[in-house]
Amino acid sequence: MHILITNDDGWGAKGLLTLVRLMQQFGNVTVIAPDGARSGQSNAISVGVPLYMHPVPVPQELAGAEAYVTNGTPSDCVKLAVNTVFREHLPDLVVSGINHGSNAAVNVIYSGTMGACFVAAEQGIPAIGFSLCDHQPNADFSFFEPYIISLTEQILSMPHIDGICYNINAPIGEIRGVRWTRQCRGHWTKEFFPQTDDKGETIYVLTGEFCNHEPEAEDTDEWALQHGFVSVTPDTIDMTCYAALR
Amino acid sequence: MHILITNDDGWGAKGLLTLVRLMQQFGNVTVIAPDGARSGQSNAISVGVPLYMHPVPVPQELAGAEAYVTNGTPSDCVKLAVNTVFREHLPDLVVSGINHGSNAAVNVIYSGTMGACFVAAEQGIPAIGFSLCDHQPNADFSFFEPYIISLTEQILSMPHIDGICYNINAPIGEIRGVRWTRQCRGHWTKEFFPQTDDKGETIYVLTGEFCNHEPEAEDTDEWALQHGFVSVTPDTIDMTCYAALR
Repeated sequence: MHILITNDDGWGAKGLLTLVRLMQQFGNVTVIAPDGARSGQSNAISVGVPLYMHPVPVPQELAGAEAYVTNGTPSDCVKLAVNTVFREHLPDLVVSGINHGSNAAVNVIYSGTMGACFVAAEQGIPAIGFSLCDHQPNADFSFFEPYIISLTEQILSMPHIDGICYNINAPIGEIRGVRWTRQCRGHWTKEFFPQTDDKGETIYVLTGEFCNHEPEAEDTDEWALQHGFVSVTPDTIDMTCYAALR
Repeated sequence: MHILITNDDGWGAKGLLTLVRLMQQFGNVTVIAPDGARSGQSNAISVGVPLYMHPVPVPQELAGAEAYVTNGTPSDCVKLAVNTVFREHLPDLVVSGINHGSNAAVNVIYSGTMGACFVAAEQGIPAIGFSLCDHQPNADFSFFEPYIISLTEQILSMPHIDGICYNINAPIGEIRGVRWTRQCRGHWTKEFFPQTDDKGETIYVLTGEFCNHEPEAEDTDEWALQHGFVSVTPDTIDMTCYAALR
């Protein structure tokens, strides 16, 4: 099988290289990744911006994988892939990440990692986004690795549902198991404060605290992560609220 | 009541100024808009980028409205709003648009217009995105205007459901009525072709054709638009696929 890998932390990120190594157990790997960090890029696409796509050498231990970098977003990477390298045959699987940072709860709507998976879901390709709740460039993915393998096997063995993909998050450190979860309700608060730059101008730099609206609910991704479990949330690109429609 | 208006075409766009004029019938209007076009920005947020927020004068016919521009995305605009102008009291309503171009079907996941609404939904604020299926800067919004008024009245009179917002699209020209719809299934194809720039380098510029997977289904937003109706789709920021989870 042929696997496309992308991410939002950019080519060279430890999480991406870890994922390439793991996915080489499943088949041929092609990477099309941003040429630098694209965190918080959601499903952004580059409208009117000329994109390039340059081959890059892969580290020796990942020999056999093919890799390209672009000046686009994670969503652009998947769109470029299906119109270039995978023009004749779509990839059998798109995997995105491993993201350095959580994409649980409402983070999913801001996530470039998951944005790439949503494009894959639109194109009818099975897709999985992997994220570890650790922003450090040198984050330790070792506890997560066996779960990435087993969950990929499990998802590939299940019938593919059009328009959906999987948002898989792991806590830092040792892992107690896997929970199938729903997206936790909550919102970000205290995201912008006025600061003064060198020229005396008022500026705002994104920060914030997550406010969990349902910390006791045991079926959410946040609960799983808080209690040492990997969370697996199936996501749909159909944003219709059917309850409200009825 | 106090209304926040933003968009993804930027301050000065005809659709935005039209919306300000219409919303002044409902209450006090504050605009926080990008300083230029941000089409296709989805829910992108500016991570690590200092944002400014400058007051701008409003045209005389919109006197009474307050307006600011920022170098951020539509999502940043709403986040800035709730942390600055609306720090003490959240807006009673967020409206986004009027977008120059359709946000029906899968376009919703790429839409900066709707991205702003999703942030509002996260913050618990009623939100409506308005879009006209016409990309022209000088698009004619006149047929849509009475529907914008009546649908805003209708939505404000309904009980607010946390985490949802409304994606309202209108066809070009005369309108036959309103349909409450779901998001049509479909995908974009032929989005990138290799071209050569002045330096002889291969580049790719986003284009594409929409492939409707269910043109006969009469309950979709695409069907409504194709048949001269305004489409109203309630959207949720909970992306969990509950059918897959079960």
